Amino acid sequence: MRITEITITPIAVPDVPLANTKGVHQSVFLRSVIEMRTDTGLVGLSESYGAKRTLDGLRAAALALEGLDPYDLRDLRRRIETTLPDAGGINAPTALADHQVVDVVYSAFELACMDLRGKEVGRPLYDLLGGAVRKQIGFGGYLFFKFAKQDLTFGPDIMGEVMTPDAMVAQAREFVGAYGFQSLKLKGGVLEPDAEVETMLKLREVFPHHALRIDPMGAWTVPTAKKIVDQLDGVLEYLEDPCRGMDAMAELSAQIDMPLATNLVVVEFEQIFEAVRKNAVQIILSDHHYWRGPTGAIQLGEVCRAAGLGVSMHSNSHLGISLAAMCHVAAATPNLTYDCDTHYPWSTKEIVTSGRPVFENGMLRVPEGPGLGVELDHEAVADLHDLYNQAMVRDRDDTDEMLKYVPDYVRKVPRW
Amino acid sequence: MRITEITITPIAVPDVPLANTKGVHQSVFLRSVIEMRTDTGLVGLSESYGAKRTLDGLRAAALALEGLDPYDLRDLRRRIETTLPDAGGINAPTALADHQVVDVVYSAFELACMDLRGKEVGRPLYDLLGGAVRKQIGFGGYLFFKFAKQDLTFGPDIMGEVMTPDAMVAQAREFVGAYGFQSLKLKGGVLEPDAEVETMLKLREVFPHHALRIDPMGAWTVPTAKKIVDQLDGVLEYLEDPCRGMDAMAELSAQIDMPLATNLVVVEFEQIFEAVRKNAVQIILSDHHYWRGPTGAIQLGEVCRAAGLGVSMHSNSHLGISLAAMCHVAAATPNLTYDCDTHYPWSTKEIVTSGRPVFENGMLRVPEGPGLGVELDHEAVADLHDLYNQAMVRDRDDTDEMLKYVPDYVRKVPRW
Ligand SMILES: [Mg+2]
Ligand SMILES: [Mg+2]
Repeated sequence: MRITEITITPIAVPDVPLANTKGVHQSVFLRSVIEMRTDTGLVGLSESYGAKRTLDGLRAAALALEGLDPYDLRDLRRRIETTLPDAGGINAPTALADHQVVDVVYSAFELACMDLRGKEVGRPLYDLLGGAVRKQIGFGGYLFFKFAKQDLTFGPDIMGEVMTPDAMVAQAREFVGAYGFQSLKLKGGVLEPDAEVETMLKLREVFPHHALRIDPMGAWTVPTAKKIVDQLDGVLEYLEDPCRGMDAMAELSAQIDMPLATNLVVVEFEQIFEAVRKNAVQIILSDHHYWRGPTGAIQLGEVCRAAGLGVSMHSNSHLGISLAAMCHVAAATPNLTYDCDTHYPWSTKEIVTSGRPVFENGMLRVPEGPGLGVELDHEAVADLHDLYNQAMVRDRDDTDEMLKYVPDYVRKVPRW
Repeated sequence: MRITEITITPIAVPDVPLANTKGVHQSVFLRSVIEMRTDTGLVGLSESYGAKRTLDGLRAAALALEGLDPYDLRDLRRRIETTLPDAGGINAPTALADHQVVDVVYSAFELACMDLRGKEVGRPLYDLLGGAVRKQIGFGGYLFFKFAKQDLTFGPDIMGEVMTPDAMVAQAREFVGAYGFQSLKLKGGVLEPDAEVETMLKLREVFPHHALRIDPMGAWTVPTAKKIVDQLDGVLEYLEDPCRGMDAMAELSAQIDMPLATNLVVVEFEQIFEAVRKNAVQIILSDHHYWRGPTGAIQLGEVCRAAGLGVSMHSNSHLGISLAAMCHVAAATPNLTYDCDTHYPWSTKEIVTSGRPVFENGMLRVPEGPGLGVELDHEAVADLHDLYNQAMVRDRDDTDEMLKYVPDYVRKVPRW
């Protein structure tokens, strides 16, 4: 089995103005859809980021993958590293965290290779990752403060403006009602800390048995975070990236009992050792899009087990190929004991023939394969590729988008 | 594909009196040969330790594996942990290092499962481990001080008494001549330090371009080790386990530039973090027999890469199934840049139909599969099983054996 052809289709998916410490989501989010064909007539699928640096990296590397054996992941890595020797990171230098283009590109193609292998042997992806310890994958409701969408050219709004604690409780009610989520994560760092504390306390009141989290993406100084931790004592399952940088996280961690999670200060295997030495975090968020593919994500779980760290799962805005991959990885990560993040409810589109899956009690059943267990809806991809051409958004810039809603917005992390 | 039947055959293989800090090898070494049959008619092979605790663990766990899917490594782990909840270690409490019975048993059966998977899909094992970065696997000559064998009941001696620096040079010449080894490792901690330093200096003289190592298995105190390091400055590729325990290794490491390797103070993933924090070692020895199977050994390579540590490969006395597995693991561990250890030249038997492979320039070609790429020679296994019954050796005890050669021997680690 050898790779003969790779198609990379950038797509734009209607998004809504979800707020975070970087600004606010644009009117569309960008994804890449990957089809990897073999001389045996199989097609392996993958989905990754769609912004410029990733897309350029995927396209350049794809040219070097002809003849690749999908089993030979080391050859895949070598070809990508050779093709992209100085690719740098996928994000702007001001980003809170960055991922190497080679890691992201490798991750995307590894998933397609694993899909091919699963299809060839008639096995679900999770079996190629060591087997499933669970078939029902728990997801949490991902709550966002948001503006009412101004420009409806590319798609309608979802839930209008949500900029107060009470509005957020309403958002949570709607999500829990529709998806049955058993846990709720608030993207924080948007309102004043007092208002976000009030939000969490109100959520706790209304959802006394839900696991609650907040992720202000580095918006708080250590003293501010310490104060908030005191106010939310006993309320949170974990606190995600309250402070910016490994040392600030470690400084806070030393003062509190509440577990700290991260997808900002530990995003590469190399950083785990520093984090353990400094006891900066207790939970690392897995993500097969940058932790060196599904096999890397599984490995992260094993490293965390050995390090005595917990594992949760990170999400970016995504569609059904990524969702399926997240389910397979979660199924095969024994110590992934927290509900996974997902932005999925914030869009209404789908690019797989099975359509949008139904969450039951916040859970999805892992597809039973072969491979990822999903097939591409080519018409849907073509529509979203048209939207990509129409929308002319080529990069993600939440800060720039924010100026449309708050003209004097200045990004500042930490802000409080 | 489901497991229907597992055969575990203990065998005894003629050995020679190789000396180390624990004493000396017995007249036979013990191995377990595993055949794992499936409902699809395949047979997966494995080879592991053959002493009592391992054999008991393998036999107990085997009863619980009927119906197992060889892809489901997590189910394998779960069944073994459930069957052997209090199995403890494979070694006596006085051992320099121990391995959990569940890890060793898991490792043995994982290899058989991977062999089955390779056979099913017609792929060499290395492809199931992410692909081969090399097909020629380098091994080093493993030099031992030794007695002339007294009891020749179960097999002849090899090379007679080797108890002086000059005799060791002769041993090295013989090995290099026969196998073409490009590197040489001395099992030290047997003679007085001065004599072992002299041995290494003589080896350097005779083999100016060979990579040289010495492994005294914790025989030296930190001051002794420091003195020896000074004497062997520029002579060694690395120094293996000069001192006993993580803290002594760290204390030495802080005083020297020479890289330290270990298969004693880091034998589980959990210990890597402590070793990194203390900078106790710079190279970890991989071994699929206890690092949670071939997949665990591959993972060890990745963790070492992230930790900035080197990887080499450990050996116990073994035959051709283990040798094939070592080749596959080495092929698929990119950063395994040192020649692997092997005891292989110290026996003359074989249990695979292809017989004893020929080393060229100290290297072996990784078998091209499917799976391990070796098949069982049932007659040879039967013969060595007969020897097992005859020899009545059921456990390894180098210290007890040593009393036959040195009646007043007292084991002491460190000794100097
Ligand atoms: Mg986060
Ligand atoms: Mg050793």
